[in-house]
Amino acid sequence: MADPLSGSRSRIDAIDRQLLDLLAERGILVDEVLATKQREGLSIFDPAREQQKVDAFRVAAADRGLDQDWSEDFLRMVMSASRAMQSVGPQPSATAEPRCVLLVGGAGKMGTLYARLLTRSGHEVRILDRGDWPRAGELTAGLDAAIVMVPIRDTEQVIGELAPHLAAETVLCDFTSQKTGPLEAMLAAHPGPVLGLHPMHGPDVQNLTKQLLIVCPGRDADQGAWLLEQARLWGMRLSEIPAPQHDRTMNLIQGLRHFLALLHGSFLAECQLPPGEILRMSSPIYRAELMMTGRIFAQNAELYADIVFADDDRRQLLLDFLDHHTQLAELVRTDNKDGFIAVFAEVRDFFGDFADQALTESSYLIHRLADRFA
Amino acid sequence: MADPLSGSRSRIDAIDRQLLDLLAERGILVDEVLATKQREGLSIFDPAREQQKVDAFRVAAADRGLDQDWSEDFLRMVMSASRAMQSVGPQPSATAEPRCVLLVGGAGKMGTLYARLLTRSGHEVRILDRGDWPRAGELTAGLDAAIVMVPIRDTEQVIGELAPHLAAETVLCDFTSQKTGPLEAMLAAHPGPVLGLHPMHGPDVQNLTKQLLIVCPGRDADQGAWLLEQARLWGMRLSEIPAPQHDRTMNLIQGLRHFLALLHGSFLAECQLPPGEILRMSSPIYRAELMMTGRIFAQNAELYADIVFADDDRRQLLLDFLDHHTQLAELVRTDNKDGFIAVFAEVRDFFGDFADQALTESSYLIHRLADRFA
Repeated sequence: MADPLSGSRSRIDAIDRQLLDLLAERGILVDEVLATKQREGLSIFDPAREQQKVDAFRVAAADRGLDQDWSEDFLRMVMSASRAMQSVGPQPSATAEPRCVLLVGGAGKMGTLYARLLTRSGHEVRILDRGDWPRAGELTAGLDAAIVMVPIRDTEQVIGELAPHLAAETVLCDFTSQKTGPLEAMLAAHPGPVLGLHPMHGPDVQNLTKQLLIVCPGRDADQGAWLLEQARLWGMRLSEIPAPQHDRTMNLIQGLRHFLALLHGSFLAECQLPPGEILRMSSPIYRAELMMTGRIFAQNAELYADIVFADDDRRQLLLDFLDHHTQLAELVRTDNKDGFIAVFAEVRDFFGDFADQALTESSYLIHRLADRFA
Repeated sequence: MADPLSGSRSRIDAIDRQLLDLLAERGILVDEVLATKQREGLSIFDPAREQQKVDAFRVAAADRGLDQDWSEDFLRMVMSASRAMQSVGPQPSATAEPRCVLLVGGAGKMGTLYARLLTRSGHEVRILDRGDWPRAGELTAGLDAAIVMVPIRDTEQVIGELAPHLAAETVLCDFTSQKTGPLEAMLAAHPGPVLGLHPMHGPDVQNLTKQLLIVCPGRDADQGAWLLEQARLWGMRLSEIPAPQHDRTMNLIQGLRHFLALLHGSFLAECQLPPGEILRMSSPIYRAELMMTGRIFAQNAELYADIVFADDDRRQLLLDFLDHHTQLAELVRTDNKDGFIAVFAEVRDFFGDFADQALTESSYLIHRLADRFA
């Protein structure tokens, strides 16, 4: 007997082929848009256009009886692929004439990413890595900007060695994940323009659109403006934050998070509970949690040690965190459920509307994870 | 002067309207498939068909020069919307004749969800909630199955009150998030078929396809088989696990996770770092992390207190976790970076290939989050 579903299914398959045809055609048009943007020096990411597209798409989806939220997700996925494609080819340039940029420690993955984008925007890129110091004079001749992107423990020393080679008008920047120390070192070593930068993404991103670049101004901001404009043209979001505030928040964002991941992962190891066994019993929520912890251990131990042990302030914060844990554990030891509920209520008050936003965003993530991997 | 992008953009808009037309047409075909599945008693979720579709779609995408991974994400999103639509209408039934199911504590959200699905599969659903005990005799007459879904602290007492009303052939089940105690209570109170169940999802899911149902067998498994088959027809994944193993793992999955979230959230409150300020400086990775913590606080404090303080074993595990933290914090206190790297290496060895899987899955999540909310 024939499969009773085969008729409808082959018509669904035909529609899916048409969807692919349209997506391929859309890709060609996106290439045209890119060529125009590159010619006209327009940013890859245009938030106003994107919002306008989303609004119109939601209306059009509702007209056709489709779920609006789902349709928005759908469009954002398609647009994200457009941006990824737009980032493969030539990039718009922030300057009429090409600039010359030195990436110090630029032989790594992060350097490779920025070298590619700078080159595609028409600039000249030079790399100075470990073995290249004898050629430092040659590599710094006629330089417009130098970006120091070495491990955090080497940053201040490298700044000290690099600065004497720079002309007074060269913009000196760094990419370190702490800002106060490196910024002071740059200001002390270089009399010209200084800019502290912290790109909040890893080297494995497909493109820089929507990625956050934290900017801590140092000296003569106008002379470094072209570099920030270049980042904006690649689609980055820029956020200017004073260095001390950046460092305080980063102690929590980077220090505490990575310490918590080690704490969680090593406790699972101590309990002899292999991740595979946990996954067999996991809801998508816990799966997401476990994946966020597990990803750390696919990466470099020394990098994370540098992040967790960055300086005395960060270590002190982690010790304060142990005190906090000891207090909360007292509720567990004394079986004090009411105390737990009281702390919970305080956090809820402190979080305010954020808790609802968190529920919405994390539910979206969890549904995507369940779609994709469960 | 005319906008140089307007020509390409209006052609892109036209393509996007055609995409919506195709999606709407696809929805109609999916309705046809559902009607057939319901008529023929076929499961909503067909993993083999889904994998076959994914494989064919990847090939077709590559033929058109589209990225294969992205195309797979795209198809899975479309298919997930299909399943959501399929869950709105009538559902396939696991039995030739309708069965009669009592949901004890079924007036809440979880009960509403299962009542809807059971009804749409043609079964008769009765609800016994707090005020209904005087009518217990009437509500239990001619019953095929009773599912106890009350808060964990009430489960064993409710089982004791319910069991005397049940006929010997009624299947007695529970939905509690711990299994050993409730299973023992059911076996002691009811001489007939007994089945411990733990649905690993919240009441806010759009549908049950791909959701995990943990099954802890009690007595006379064959007499409860139709209920498990019904869950399978709704698209659920079933996993049979002995109750003690379930409870041990759940101490970590549910107890530790929710305690960690309270620890993280309350420490942010203690540091007076409002989530809005952190988000301004967050990478998508940390944003995901913060959303997973924050979601807890949009939910019921007592529910989480019940989860964290479930029993002495779970509290002991949380106290062991404090000991573990105290040991790791010693590395921070003594600035012992090498010690940190050694612990990191042990966890990596324990996790094995899982760390790479975690990096892949979490990177997918992070990209989706950045697409959607950044």
